[in-house]
Amino acid sequence: MTAKLLSAAPVVDQFKRDLAERCQALKLKGFTPSMCVVLVGDNPASQSYIRNKRRICEEVGASFRLEHLPADIGRNEFLGHVKELNQDPGIHGIIVQLPVSEHLRNLDLPNLVHPAKDIDGFHGQNTQQLYAGTRDLSLLLPCTPKGIIHLLNFYGYNLKGSSVAVIGRSAIVGKPLSMLLTNLDATVTLAHSQTKDIREVTRQAEIVVAAVGKARFMDRSYFNSERRTVVIDVGMNSLNGKLTGDVDLDDVKDFVAAITPVPGGVGPMTVVTLIDNLISAVERTAKGMQ
Amino acid sequence: MTAKLLSAAPVVDQFKRDLAERCQALKLKGFTPSMCVVLVGDNPASQSYIRNKRRICEEVGASFRLEHLPADIGRNEFLGHVKELNQDPGIHGIIVQLPVSEHLRNLDLPNLVHPAKDIDGFHGQNTQQLYAGTRDLSLLLPCTPKGIIHLLNFYGYNLKGSSVAVIGRSAIVGKPLSMLLTNLDATVTLAHSQTKDIREVTRQAEIVVAAVGKARFMDRSYFNSERRTVVIDVGMNSLNGKLTGDVDLDDVKDFVAAITPVPGGVGPMTVVTLIDNLISAVERTAKGMQ
Repeated sequence: MTAKLLSAAPVVDQFKRDLAERCQALKLKGFTPSMCVVLVGDNPASQSYIRNKRRICEEVGASFRLEHLPADIGRNEFLGHVKELNQDPGIHGIIVQLPVSEHLRNLDLPNLVHPAKDIDGFHGQNTQQLYAGTRDLSLLLPCTPKGIIHLLNFYGYNLKGSSVAVIGRSAIVGKPLSMLLTNLDATVTLAHSQTKDIREVTRQAEIVVAAVGKARFMDRSYFNSERRTVVIDVGMNSLNGKLTGDVDLDDVKDFVAAITPVPGGVGPMTVVTLIDNLISAVERTAKGMQ
Repeated sequence: MTAKLLSAAPVVDQFKRDLAERCQALKLKGFTPSMCVVLVGDNPASQSYIRNKRRICEEVGASFRLEHLPADIGRNEFLGHVKELNQDPGIHGIIVQLPVSEHLRNLDLPNLVHPAKDIDGFHGQNTQQLYAGTRDLSLLLPCTPKGIIHLLNFYGYNLKGSSVAVIGRSAIVGKPLSMLLTNLDATVTLAHSQTKDIREVTRQAEIVVAAVGKARFMDRSYFNSERRTVVIDVGMNSLNGKLTGDVDLDDVKDFVAAITPVPGGVGPMTVVTLIDNLISAVERTAKGMQ
């Protein structure tokens, strides 16, 4: 037996068609979905992420703007730019591309963008909805967790009552994902670097999400082949210049039921979910104005 | 073997002495810690909770005010009262006592109180710190989770690397507690009504937190006596007019290592932690003004 590859491609294709239709419907009502990315400095990885965002915006008919600021921009000037975008009725979604310059890092970055334009889903008012128990995927929730749920739904995996091990406790992936899965009736164990024996956790789960940030961290010893585990690999590590996941796919492929590839799995789901958040934000604005 | 009773009494005593000292130190600097509870209508349970809060305030030397509003108060008038309290420099902690009247429930209650005066720890800006990974118990975090950590610390239980099962996914207890425990390096499984087999979860954990809200929900079958489980019972259920926990203490006492009694366990820890949040809020104000 070899694991089924849970590729993002068919999900993304379906998503894009749907997003293009919703975008067109909004344009007919006079709203052209528009996002703006605020980039400080010239981080090359950021530039590549931004190209992806721009490309999908163009593909679905949304408008894209880059606000490129110098690395040494003053705090007040930076804050002024974000404030202007928050107030600009022609901009529906704002992303402050991370990382920003050192001297801006002690700003309260997650809460700078107005919650209604926070398509990254990092603002306290948006993450708070995860506490409140929401299972509404049209809300502005963090993109990687939401993208993972869409991927699992597309491939027909049932979350209700399933046991999920999330490995990694970051504020962007592990924690919000564990809450969203809980809201969707999964039973989640959140493990991390201080967990005594991660294998004990992963070998018992039906779904394992690896969000560790270490190339090929998990080999076959992490899985019980009888459990027919579904593996979601969130890793985007660079190994010898190659994008590499947290799971050693070649080593585990005969020991798990299904796995997302890297590249071509969680990454593309995250970007398309960001554009989904943009369109959802505009739909909410359009509804409020009717 | 009979389980050790993890009574709140000695923890609360120690806490109160400490709070009284911190309160006195603040008074010498010209700040008298003052909390205000906003009560809408005449819910008898609310009145009893409020009496507890007032009593502890008086015991540690803080000032207490009750703003008692009629059950049929208008939305705007209600909001006006809260706004006034937010702006009043003589009030450091505000609690909107739940439940409020039906017609006020669709207000964004957790976010009405200014985050710096939110001693319940429900505001998005405060809960957000749990995402960010904080382990700082001087922050305004939700009282029941924080009180449980204080209790476990007092009795010398080590959280780092321990496996904890939290049963119940509420926004007030289960979810924030699971995140706080994660930040303190525990490995947490969050189970709930849709979990296939809760016993499978509880029988493997070193610490079990029952926050289910059903009287005597757990009997000995939920525990593996060889694991010497530590049980935290958050239940405050009324059974035949008696305050009853989620765990059947009499039934489990020879099968677990330690357990919090009900009453006299988590409940008193929650109230004293609320006053701790009040004093912490004033300490932060006092520091900012020096």
